[in-house]
Amino acid sequence: MASSDFTHRLSQGAERVERMLERILSADCLPGETARPNRLLDAMRHASLDGGKRLRPFLMIESARMLGLDNEGVLRAACALELVHCYSLVHDDLPAMDDDDLRRGRPTVHKAFDEATAILAGDSLLTLAFDVMGDAPTHPDPAVRAALVVGLARNAGIGGMAGGQMFDLAAEKAEAPLGRAQIETLQAMKTGALLRFAVEAGGLMAGASAPRKAALAEYGAALGAAFQVADDILDHEGDAAQLGKRAGKDADRNKATLVTLLGLAAAKLWRDELAERAEAALDMFGPRADILRQAARFTASRDH
Amino acid sequence: MASSDFTHRLSQGAERVERMLERILSADCLPGETARPNRLLDAMRHASLDGGKRLRPFLMIESARMLGLDNEGVLRAACALELVHCYSLVHDDLPAMDDDDLRRGRPTVHKAFDEATAILAGDSLLTLAFDVMGDAPTHPDPAVRAALVVGLARNAGIGGMAGGQMFDLAAEKAEAPLGRAQIETLQAMKTGALLRFAVEAGGLMAGASAPRKAALAEYGAALGAAFQVADDILDHEGDAAQLGKRAGKDADRNKATLVTLLGLAAAKLWRDELAERAEAALDMFGPRADILRQAARFTASRDH
Repeated sequence: MASSDFTHRLSQGAERVERMLERILSADCLPGETARPNRLLDAMRHASLDGGKRLRPFLMIESARMLGLDNEGVLRAACALELVHCYSLVHDDLPAMDDDDLRRGRPTVHKAFDEATAILAGDSLLTLAFDVMGDAPTHPDPAVRAALVVGLARNAGIGGMAGGQMFDLAAEKAEAPLGRAQIETLQAMKTGALLRFAVEAGGLMAGASAPRKAALAEYGAALGAAFQVADDILDHEGDAAQLGKRAGKDADRNKATLVTLLGLAAAKLWRDELAERAEAALDMFGPRADILRQAARFTASRDH
Repeated sequence: MASSDFTHRLSQGAERVERMLERILSADCLPGETARPNRLLDAMRHASLDGGKRLRPFLMIESARMLGLDNEGVLRAACALELVHCYSLVHDDLPAMDDDDLRRGRPTVHKAFDEATAILAGDSLLTLAFDVMGDAPTHPDPAVRAALVVGLARNAGIGGMAGGQMFDLAAEKAEAPLGRAQIETLQAMKTGALLRFAVEAGGLMAGASAPRKAALAEYGAALGAAFQVADDILDHEGDAAQLGKRAGKDADRNKATLVTLLGLAAAKLWRDELAERAEAALDMFGPRADILRQAARFTASRDH
């Protein structure tokens, strides 16, 4: 598959995600809801629509498709995961956290609205994610939906993404810089957990066998690690216009990254090795896994 | 059942909840978690342990017990609901929201730790709630667990509790005071939704028939409304020592309450009528519902 085909497939996926998020974030109440306050809904839409490459949903959709499942239920689950990613950005941008005014070149939620609304919008996006994941249209088997809910929670919570953010905040204030093992744990939690879960969830929905699940988990873990090293490299090299956020801020804050620890050249080698490991983990799937292999290369080599 | 027996039963329930929350908030990782950062776990424990009457868990446990189900799974679901309640207190107390330094006579989480930790602790409590609710030990039927997850999300999110908090923040800044219908909608969302869900979830887990579910929902809605009117009356009359928070602050802020709208005497009549409605909704259950009837009276007449 040519690189341009991959980019096309990625943007097609992002369009499907956008349309489904539009439906999920409409003004219509679901059964059991009393009202959806306009301002809160607007803030949730600001945080979630028109946004990004939708890499996590793409990975979930393509993992399931590789195993023969491609329907609206998978798209819903992919959007649930994206809602969790979007909530995390809203809260991470808050003044008490990373204090960012811009995200993808637009005002962050607390800038476009206010801090209280941003806190509630993040809370509501996170909560809505579990609604979408657990509800019947996502998968016909309630045991699969319950497993998706638990997997999402465990990868997003104290033992996953939120815990990783806590380690990251602590590292900024720490006197001694983190060692490599600590940085890798931090990154596996903060960004790796949701990326790996994206792939695992695709396998779970498609009823993958245990060895296939294990291969997908290995692929997801390596891809997640490659993503974060690539991100650190981009921050090191990036310019503000291309990233839509202040570049170089990791170094400003003495953030724990493998670039500062290993140096730029070694970090690039490590990133490429991780991408190769991700590709190799897919051997058992043969050519059906070509899109996921390209996703690994894309993740490692992306320039924004 | 004598009033002292009820109080004993309530405190017994709170002890069971406390012990289960201790297990849920232990330092041990669940399968799939990478690590639980100490500081984040401490903040989550500060927010959740040693706290309150545990009214929401009590209502869930007693609703299920009335219908013949009383086991550790119900206790887990009750704790999941309590985690959502505790997360909401952590975020509501933040400087950008209600800006409270004290909660139950102790420093709020952002005072005992810091704002970033409080935001992450709230996020992690909310996330953990869905983990606990969706996981196998909570109920043998995954369809019930998925329904619990969706019900919890829908009552906690934009169409429920979080949306109610958004309406409440908007009301403080509004030029014209809210009318009665608006106040009742706000309160039904902000505090009523979780109280009603507590009762509905007990019925769901116990496999209640449709008419019984409807009766429980009616009871829960009336009890939730009575709870909020009683709270407004307490705030109006209360003193800071007994409440463990600044009393009279609703009036300070021109908060939308039925006491300011109707006057104290009419608000008390309305509170008592709601409690009677709650009791009457339980007629079909006969004497088995005595504890829930007492819970309605307790909710309306409590002095803290």
